[in-house]
Amino acid sequence: MATSEKLINIGSKHEDVQNRPDDRNVPINEVGICDLKFPLVLKGCEKDQSVTQHVQAVFSLSVDLDGAKKGIHMSRLLETVLDHNTELSLNGLKNFLEDLSNRQLAKNAYAKIDFDYFFTKVAPVSGIQSPQAYSCSFECAYDSGGFKLKQSVEVPVKTLCPCSKEISDYGAHSQRSKVWISLLHKQEGDSEVGVSLEEIVDIAENGASSPLYPILKREDERHVTMSAYDKPCFVEDVVRNIAIVLDGDIRFYSYEIRVVNFESIHSHNAFAVIQKSNI
Amino acid sequence: MATSEKLINIGSKHEDVQNRPDDRNVPINEVGICDLKFPLVLKGCEKDQSVTQHVQAVFSLSVDLDGAKKGIHMSRLLETVLDHNTELSLNGLKNFLEDLSNRQLAKNAYAKIDFDYFFTKVAPVSGIQSPQAYSCSFECAYDSGGFKLKQSVEVPVKTLCPCSKEISDYGAHSQRSKVWISLLHKQEGDSEVGVSLEEIVDIAENGASSPLYPILKREDERHVTMSAYDKPCFVEDVVRNIAIVLDGDIRFYSYEIRVVNFESIHSHNAFAVIQKSNI
Amino acid sequence: MATSEKLINIGSKHEDVQNRPDDRNVPINEVGICDLKFPLVLKGCEKDQSVTQHVQAVFSLSVDLDGAKKGIHMSRLLETVLDHNTELSLNGLKNFLEDLSNRQLAKNAYAKIDFDYFFTKVAPVSGIQSPQAYSCSFECAYDSGGFKLKQSVEVPVKTLCPCSKEISDYGAHSQRSKVWISLLHKQEGDSEVGVSLEEIVDIAENGASSPLYPILKREDERHVTMSAYDKPCFVEDVVRNIAIVLDGDIRFYSYEIRVVNFESIHSHNAFAVIQKSNI
Amino acid sequence: MATSEKLINIGSKHEDVQNRPDDRNVPINEVGICDLKFPLVLKGCEKDQSVTQHVQAVFSLSVDLDGAKKGIHMSRLLETVLDHNTELSLNGLKNFLEDLSNRQLAKNAYAKIDFDYFFTKVAPVSGIQSPQAYSCSFECAYDSGGFKLKQSVEVPVKTLCPCSKEISDYGAHSQRSKVWISLLHKQEGDSEVGVSLEEIVDIAENGASSPLYPILKREDERHVTMSAYDKPCFVEDVVRNIAIVLDGDIRFYSYEIRVVNFESIHSHNAFAVIQKSNI
Repeated sequence: MATSEKLINIGSKHEDVQNRPDDRNVPINEVGICDLKFPLVLKGCEKDQSVTQHVQAVFSLSVDLDGAKKGIHMSRLLETVLDHNTELSLNGLKNFLEDLSNRQLAKNAYAKIDFDYFFTKVAPVSGIQSPQAYSCSFECAYDSGGFKLKQSVEVPVKTLCPCSKEISDYGAHSQRSKVWISLLHKQEGDSEVGVSLEEIVDIAENGASSPLYPILKREDERHVTMSAYDKPCFVEDVVRNIAIVLDGDIRFYSYEIRVVNFESIHSHNAFAVIQKSNI
Repeated sequence: MATSEKLINIGSKHEDVQNRPDDRNVPINEVGICDLKFPLVLKGCEKDQSVTQHVQAVFSLSVDLDGAKKGIHMSRLLETVLDHNTELSLNGLKNFLEDLSNRQLAKNAYAKIDFDYFFTKVAPVSGIQSPQAYSCSFECAYDSGGFKLKQSVEVPVKTLCPCSKEISDYGAHSQRSKVWISLLHKQEGDSEVGVSLEEIVDIAENGASSPLYPILKREDERHVTMSAYDKPCFVEDVVRNIAIVLDGDIRFYSYEIRVVNFESIHSHNAFAVIQKSNI
Repeated sequence: MATSEKLINIGSKHEDVQNRPDDRNVPINEVGICDLKFPLVLKGCEKDQSVTQHVQAVFSLSVDLDGAKKGIHMSRLLETVLDHNTELSLNGLKNFLEDLSNRQLAKNAYAKIDFDYFFTKVAPVSGIQSPQAYSCSFECAYDSGGFKLKQSVEVPVKTLCPCSKEISDYGAHSQRSKVWISLLHKQEGDSEVGVSLEEIVDIAENGASSPLYPILKREDERHVTMSAYDKPCFVEDVVRNIAIVLDGDIRFYSYEIRVVNFESIHSHNAFAVIQKSNI
Repeated sequence: MATSEKLINIGSKHEDVQNRPDDRNVPINEVGICDLKFPLVLKGCEKDQSVTQHVQAVFSLSVDLDGAKKGIHMSRLLETVLDHNTELSLNGLKNFLEDLSNRQLAKNAYAKIDFDYFFTKVAPVSGIQSPQAYSCSFECAYDSGGFKLKQSVEVPVKTLCPCSKEISDYGAHSQRSKVWISLLHKQEGDSEVGVSLEEIVDIAENGASSPLYPILKREDERHVTMSAYDKPCFVEDVVRNIAIVLDGDIRFYSYEIRVVNFESIHSHNAFAVIQKSNI
């Protein structure tokens, strides 16, 4: 028998091991695949909801498994992605999760989609435009509690230290910082959930001493330097400035804000976190 | 005025900006420092509780901040580490957290200490011994709920696929996998909390197709190859094998098991998670 | 004066600090920017040279600086990317580097463009198709030696250990491995340089025990398991299998092959490297 | 036959596959293991050469392989580490490499040892002391060219932008930066090679706007803020300031300096590199 024939002839070896009963009777909260890179065309991330962008996403996909079954069908998870490929933007996620769970005969399904999205930044004086990347994620759950979506954006910003400014005759240390804003949405009925990521970016940038820009000409750099000096922010200030904007916004159920300052006077970092329910 | 004099003369610039009142009145869940590398001599991680090991830890330290205060005293966080340096093993963590919160006049304090710990692995046939690193963490909280400790260990293991073995005339794909076991302890009264990390490592390794070893001579490699083939494990099997051992162990409040298979037939990974309360 | 006015009024503060003379007289080999994320439409990476793909690239861009000048014009580096945006595929790189050096009045220019590219993988028996990501880079230099281009591709594969197979009564350990192939091209006259990345991927995959696939149905998994068992490869074998194919190929000046096995019996990795000139 | 017996009985399966001849006749530049974590007690890294420190190192170990042999003996690489354990400081590296090559009957041997080393930093005004981690490496080669050692240290520092200071009415952006200094030593006869890492750290810190410190009280923060403002440095300045110190130092054959600024006004980084031979 030739090798190719031998390899194809699965013959009596056809039993689906995953379908065998499991006598340990231990249910599994989540089982699936992660670190799966997949290209997507995303829609609905910008204020103009009709704009699309090609992104290179990383998926984590999982379902629950009841105690009586030995395993899930791993290959079906990726087949579900292939079938829903074109609708994997904000509004298609619920259908995608329903299908994920149906194909595994599972009760719950989970997906996390991480991607970089480019928004155009406009230099503050010269007006030069250039794309800047923001790391984003959509984390969704479809279970007995209905459909939930957590949108997260990582926004690099600049902070200038109020203490350093106050205690020094001149100057003040500044540094790059990162803001993570996560918004948890719980769907009521068939309402649409989610806000534009672009709006979240604006909120994060406004909470710090200054936004960052890919291109700054000299007049822009002067502007960023002086406006940051005019708006010094502790890590505590940034997290609070953002909390005030998000607080009470009933478009989402709860929010989490995390800010990290890559301190320019230490080799460790400073951080602050606020988590709060709005509903 | 000489530069050195000028720089030291803080004169009227003495106000502690962090102590100013804050009129936004937004309480902060956590504020502190992270990614701080610090050398420690750890005790109590092995079955023989008296053994010590030099580790190079990474700290995250934080407290809550009430809405009326502008900032915390970042430098005091590290001063607290310096003062408790020699007692930063399992049994000293509660005192450390109490002191962290007291020095900031905070209600809650949190610490996460990540470190690599070396346990000796003995090759299964030749008996050759060599140290193997395991990434570990102690995550603690001191708040109105009392003192809580989460111990986590990352354990690299080998898994061999039961489906691949079953459907093939010969061979079966195997791969490196990682197991994370986290045990949450809630202190009752003044009882000591925590188990030896070495015990957790054993439980993780026993749940997979085979442990890993730094040195394997040919007779050892034969043993590992055949014993793994004799004990095929899906990612679902590993997480369940471990759950059965941890289940009902009232030395800890709850557990989480996470297993990732770095699949040798895919460039993405497979994973499974079980979380459960014991009490 | 209003803040906005104040910030724009650069007035007498117009000197270009970077243009000042530098009295240390120390030439700098490379100065520029790195870790710049930028979206590109790439052409010429596939066997069908007309195919394009949207990628999210990371740029490093630099030039030399002679000892008499204080600094380069950082913002012009990114402006050059913006201006050459649409031609930043294989054939436009030389023009791009010439322009980079011209705008800085530099003699040498360097660029490194890292990106993930998706090629379609076809499951070996079922024929199911799915995209798989490969990390790639174009590294170019424009200097007195002319124009040089190094193309690199990282290819995940499967290896099965010949020793483990030989010494065991049944089974053999296998694992995920990674192959990096780098091809250095030196341009002669105005000849085009570079080969299709897809061809490099094929060479890497053929050198190992088996390629990897995003989706494998049971008949495919049987095929991959048995064909890998039929083609055991040490890390030494993979690097040699590939060297034999690349050796003497005068389309490129030299090659480097690096293979890493993420050993499924150890928590450390095995690796092998071959570097050789073809011309 | 019981499983344990079965697994130990290697019987006729005793051939050493690695020792078989290889008919492809392709020599391999380097083959070995990497990402091996191993605990060491290092000596000779500080100005006081007698001081020791426990570190957690990561090893890469390799030898060349001639074209006639199928494979190397991977387990012997780690056995060599175990045997030389206590002498794996600067002065023992040459013996270690000789032994590595001898045990594999190889001509060349290579080792790279990466580790974090803690040096004590003293706050500039308050004098408070605290350990700060520096990522270091020893990269060695033993081949026909004799024994070579490359010592590298990564030093985090602060830079303040001269352009931003010049063009702004007040303030100037600053950020955390990293300096990598690598010194290549070629041994003449039996001379000792290598300098204290502590000396390299000082050179790197003196080249920037300011060193970093783990603990800064308010008077220290004032000092760091103002002294950095008094010593603005482009990325070009840092690399040049350091080159001037290293230039002509005949204790080493050549040097490479790499500086990266994690710009606080951009989300990308700026970098500069100088490479030069001293001999």
